[in-house]
Amino acid sequence: MATDHRPTLAAVARAAGVSLKTASRVMNDEPHVAPRTRDRVRSVARDLGFRRNAAAADLARGGSAPLVGFVTADIANHFYASIADGMERALRGSGHQLITASSDEDPARERRLTEALLERRVAALVVAPTGDDHRYLAHEVRHGPPLVLVDRPAAGIDADTVVIDNDGGVRQAVDHLVAHGHRQIGLVTDHGHLWTARERRLAFVRAMAEHDLLVPDRWIRDGAHDAAAAQRLVTELLEAPAPPTALLTSNNRITAGALRALHARRAAGGDVPALVGFDDLELADLLGVTVVAYDMAEIGRQAASLALERAADPTLPPRLRTVATRLVARGSGEHRSRA
Amino acid sequence: MATDHRPTLAAVARAAGVSLKTASRVMNDEPHVAPRTRDRVRSVARDLGFRRNAAAADLARGGSAPLVGFVTADIANHFYASIADGMERALRGSGHQLITASSDEDPARERRLTEALLERRVAALVVAPTGDDHRYLAHEVRHGPPLVLVDRPAAGIDADTVVIDNDGGVRQAVDHLVAHGHRQIGLVTDHGHLWTARERRLAFVRAMAEHDLLVPDRWIRDGAHDAAAAQRLVTELLEAPAPPTALLTSNNRITAGALRALHARRAAGGDVPALVGFDDLELADLLGVTVVAYDMAEIGRQAASLALERAADPTLPPRLRTVATRLVARGSGEHRSRA
Repeated sequence: MATDHRPTLAAVARAAGVSLKTASRVMNDEPHVAPRTRDRVRSVARDLGFRRNAAAADLARGGSAPLVGFVTADIANHFYASIADGMERALRGSGHQLITASSDEDPARERRLTEALLERRVAALVVAPTGDDHRYLAHEVRHGPPLVLVDRPAAGIDADTVVIDNDGGVRQAVDHLVAHGHRQIGLVTDHGHLWTARERRLAFVRAMAEHDLLVPDRWIRDGAHDAAAAQRLVTELLEAPAPPTALLTSNNRITAGALRALHARRAAGGDVPALVGFDDLELADLLGVTVVAYDMAEIGRQAASLALERAADPTLPPRLRTVATRLVARGSGEHRSRA
Repeated sequence: MATDHRPTLAAVARAAGVSLKTASRVMNDEPHVAPRTRDRVRSVARDLGFRRNAAAADLARGGSAPLVGFVTADIANHFYASIADGMERALRGSGHQLITASSDEDPARERRLTEALLERRVAALVVAPTGDDHRYLAHEVRHGPPLVLVDRPAAGIDADTVVIDNDGGVRQAVDHLVAHGHRQIGLVTDHGHLWTARERRLAFVRAMAEHDLLVPDRWIRDGAHDAAAAQRLVTELLEAPAPPTALLTSNNRITAGALRALHARRAAGGDVPALVGFDDLELADLLGVTVVAYDMAEIGRQAASLALERAADPTLPPRLRTVATRLVARGSGEHRSRA
């Protein structure tokens, strides 16, 4: 319940007789500040007890147990749970508690939750945005507590954002399959109106083109929004004439469904394609599934650090952080091509 | 944002000139109310627009977007995510939004989160309690919004609670293994100070005794608090002289670790015991893991219904709901005994 009385950066700026921007430049060791001004701001900050690393404590002004809100898109998905876990651990050192709510990919629910959390005076807000219009968040960017977007950028506003390196991850998957002799590669992906699905699909077509490989439309199946739909789409794709020799599945739910389809096919004595999944899965090590992995908790840690930095200095320009991917070979992506 | 102005049950009682308890009896069709009183209360309720099925709306009094808080023990565990998912869907119909926070099994964090959520005027609170002393919650039971405990009861207070049928689930696992010829069965479980671990261990020894089977201490390994510890403990148990021919693992993390230990042992050409895990796992169908399963979302739905019912009628006695288990045979628990 630590209420903290350390001065804000604004108080330091006021006491030193400089603008907030100048005070921020000094505390962030940025250039374009006269040495004399720099010394004065530092001296005032020291006298007042301002500490840049106590950015966290600043968030606390006005509340007793400072809460940070996280609006996820799907509470039951391991992906968001892992982001929340990383975020919570990163916030803990600064005395903040994370609370999480799920929009269930419904833009109206996302907006209601965001507003309810702001009314409850959260110290910062992290949103995995759903839908196509996020102008309602623009007001918060200007007037509310720090706002950070994760996994997908928000349309129409310019805010701190953490995304996965979708392009790099898809390229790693395609390069890996091509290196194992595959030239006929299919993609099973989510609805095209979802930003992540769209990004990964574009990256797939681009990466294939770089290997001089064209992808017939029938090898790209979208609309795999849950594991059951993915299982059905993979089965259809493999039963159609001239199926691809390898598959990229564009998220963890789709990979789970594809694994079930391949399992059934293998049990029936059929050929199964090579498979690389985007996103790691629990127990994928035991199932021998090759995936494009990344540190999910790192997305949460980056979001926490962006929020704390902005709380300490609201004048920072919007920043984009990208979390790197790596290919983890476990067997399913290393079948040689049959062709 | 629906603010609702329907009268509370208390307002109905006041207008009818009866006690809250009597009004509650009438609205719940319970006995021991004079016919004339019953008619008067019903008539007043109708005139005022009171509707028992609008219990949900009552929760909303005083807040704009009514939030229900859920303090879990481990945000990254699929178990709690599934409970939250069930709870959220059950609350949605009544216009409530769920927010979730994690105590990370730290009693001090649990208490801070609980207090922070109450300060933010949540309409109800659901807690998966950690630690051994929950007297601080007793005040909330008497004076706060509806409080529901899930997965574990809270020590020292009498509140609405939803638990899994731990005893029945363990018995199903033991009966299944005994039916497949096993008489030497080991248990790998979490720390003994955790309520669920303790319950399942007692149930195990009891179920074995009912089959006239004694379990040597060395076949019960506790302290498996994460998958890595479980993997180590299972490996040690199987490498010791005279290992059991079958194992029961007492939760999903322990089962994941045990599966890795068995996988390594099988790869090295060693014998592997039969295995039944308590809790289902994602992709367990593909791994052929026999488990004691239950509807995790049902725990959340039951918690939501207990909270909504208590909001409608604070005079209800504390209730205990138990979620049933079922054995799902997928291969790992159906090895015949080697003995």
